Amino acid sequence: MNITRREFTWLVGAGIASQSLPGFARPEERRVGYCIVGLGRIASHFMPAIVASHKARITGLVSGHRDKAERIASQYGVPNTAIYNYQNYDEIAHNPDIEAMYIALPNGMHAEYTIRAAKAGKHVLSEKPMATTVNDAQAMIDACRKANKKLMIAYRCHYEPTNLRAVQLIREGSLGKIQAIESAFGFNIGPGEWRLDKKLAGGGPLMDVGIYSLNACRYLTGEEPAFLSATCSVIDKDGRFKDVEENVSWAMKFPSGVVASCNTTYGAQMEGFYRVHGSKGVLQVDDAFVYEGLHLTAKIDGRPAIDEPNTERDPAHFIREADHFAACILENNEPKSPGEEGLKDMKLMMEIYESCKKNA
Amino acid sequence: MNITRREFTWLVGAGIASQSLPGFARPEERRVGYCIVGLGRIASHFMPAIVASHKARITGLVSGHRDKAERIASQYGVPNTAIYNYQNYDEIAHNPDIEAMYIALPNGMHAEYTIRAAKAGKHVLSEKPMATTVNDAQAMIDACRKANKKLMIAYRCHYEPTNLRAVQLIREGSLGKIQAIESAFGFNIGPGEWRLDKKLAGGGPLMDVGIYSLNACRYLTGEEPAFLSATCSVIDKDGRFKDVEENVSWAMKFPSGVVASCNTTYGAQMEGFYRVHGSKGVLQVDDAFVYEGLHLTAKIDGRPAIDEPNTERDPAHFIREADHFAACILENNEPKSPGEEGLKDMKLMMEIYESCKKNA
Repeated sequence: MNITRREFTWLVGAGIASQSLPGFARPEERRVGYCIVGLGRIASHFMPAIVASHKARITGLVSGHRDKAERIASQYGVPNTAIYNYQNYDEIAHNPDIEAMYIALPNGMHAEYTIRAAKAGKHVLSEKPMATTVNDAQAMIDACRKANKKLMIAYRCHYEPTNLRAVQLIREGSLGKIQAIESAFGFNIGPGEWRLDKKLAGGGPLMDVGIYSLNACRYLTGEEPAFLSATCSVIDKDGRFKDVEENVSWAMKFPSGVVASCNTTYGAQMEGFYRVHGSKGVLQVDDAFVYEGLHLTAKIDGRPAIDEPNTERDPAHFIREADHFAACILENNEPKSPGEEGLKDMKLMMEIYESCKKNA
Repeated sequence: MNITRREFTWLVGAGIASQSLPGFARPEERRVGYCIVGLGRIASHFMPAIVASHKARITGLVSGHRDKAERIASQYGVPNTAIYNYQNYDEIAHNPDIEAMYIALPNGMHAEYTIRAAKAGKHVLSEKPMATTVNDAQAMIDACRKANKKLMIAYRCHYEPTNLRAVQLIREGSLGKIQAIESAFGFNIGPGEWRLDKKLAGGGPLMDVGIYSLNACRYLTGEEPAFLSATCSVIDKDGRFKDVEENVSWAMKFPSGVVASCNTTYGAQMEGFYRVHGSKGVLQVDDAFVYEGLHLTAKIDGRPAIDEPNTERDPAHFIREADHFAACILENNEPKSPGEEGLKDMKLMMEIYESCKKNA
């Protein structure tokens, strides 16, 4: 087994190697104050995670809907004075209870509210994809660096035990030499979602869910793609796909020679999965990218060898993610999934779109 | 449900729509005499199938090893006078008991022995890939046409119930509108096989097993790819891959907009499978391309709806294949997988290799 220092850090950083799981944290620990920006679907998973965390607490809310914000504030014990909107957002600078902003807005708003947060002296945990353009992503990194604030991209799977177990099995050599990966993730989207608006979303399923497969191929191999080629399509002419693609299929090659083929869609049922093929065995994670119910199986030498359903319930992944960033702030460490990690995916997704244009 | 005439023919041709399964054939039926060319691994599956068939019988053998041929001849009741070698092969012309040649030689020899068979007035069932070059494939078609003899390529899956069931479910609309497919097939090859010799094999895993995924994407969609892009690699520098690629990953787009991503390898355990994603459901066939143990599952509207393990034992697929070609000869029909079908895959595989060269 050859685990490099970088990879060991990867596993430790996620609380795998150190066993510093949330439940072991001391309750008297100082808690990082998170302000939740955007009270939508993903925030509704993140906020209960903060309540369950021993390293974090909710100290502020940002919303365009005061009523909704007040209801949620009372639910989570946030004072009404710590409710902000998108106009007075910069006032967070004067609230010392707010240390970190959790940016759970549509993709196209991540950059603005990250940069304004950094200027207000706050650390930022931004949802993925980190932005809608490479320039915006770079500007987010620059702003946080200039303000000496931490920037983490919310790559849940980097902190999730089943995905980490897959990485560990690969690095340990349990599958032999890795040769090829398949991965896919998508869903059949309803009409009217901001995800279908290119200005807000930056793109279609690739930006939203295909990014999981792309990112997984990178953490599973521990490499950056040396080549990629892609093709996009729109099949359903029902008004949903005026702005963004419906399907993407892409092939990649990594410097070691590992090849990967991936699909994503907004037009079909496509549960997230990956299969990793090695000279000695094959590993598969089903429901690899969702909040619970992940399932890792592996065959070694042709025989079923590993069958590990993940029994953690939502919001366990979010607790791990929130705790990691809180720990980074408390201990002044770099997050395992910093802005630079998000930028890499942004650049690759833009390459995929460029390739789609050529291959139209 | 929209089953076109062409597609209905596809299903009928395989004995699915008509229920004319082998067991129902009348024993007094005239049997087509097959001569087996090449007594290797695949022939050892085909010959027992002929014995089990009611439409065919073994009437000749071609081998470079007289001892082996005599042993097999006595086992299958073939007279020693009907044993040929690669020198006196053309003598088959004078044996009226031989009607069809089953070409089970290394890929690079398919063209020569098909063309010589046609010239000797015999029908030909050639293993896949039909040849190692597009020119050879075309020459095989031309020779059989000129001799007014039938040419079928041994695409087993075209005659196999689980694959046909998948096609049927898709055509019936059970999955809604199809958007994306993933497929893969490969294995970890041992050293010294003719499959690693480009002259005999024409290429690496793509020609040998990747062709199953390529062909499946075509029969599952009922379309020809409008675009493809691929990347190849060699990871193992252990002498196996001096001539041919080790891994291939490729992406395709079909005229309807369906996208497909595929992998193949000679360096890893990679059981054949495909997943087909539609707006209403997803279908998966595991062990999709092997001789037995295929397993079709489908989820419709997110719920498990179909779970159909294929309980047929080897050589059932070969019986169906041999019977189909025998019936085509007896009834003067075109095979469902004629030379032209093989030529399409040949052209696409050459496109994949061209793409790999560009994307090296």
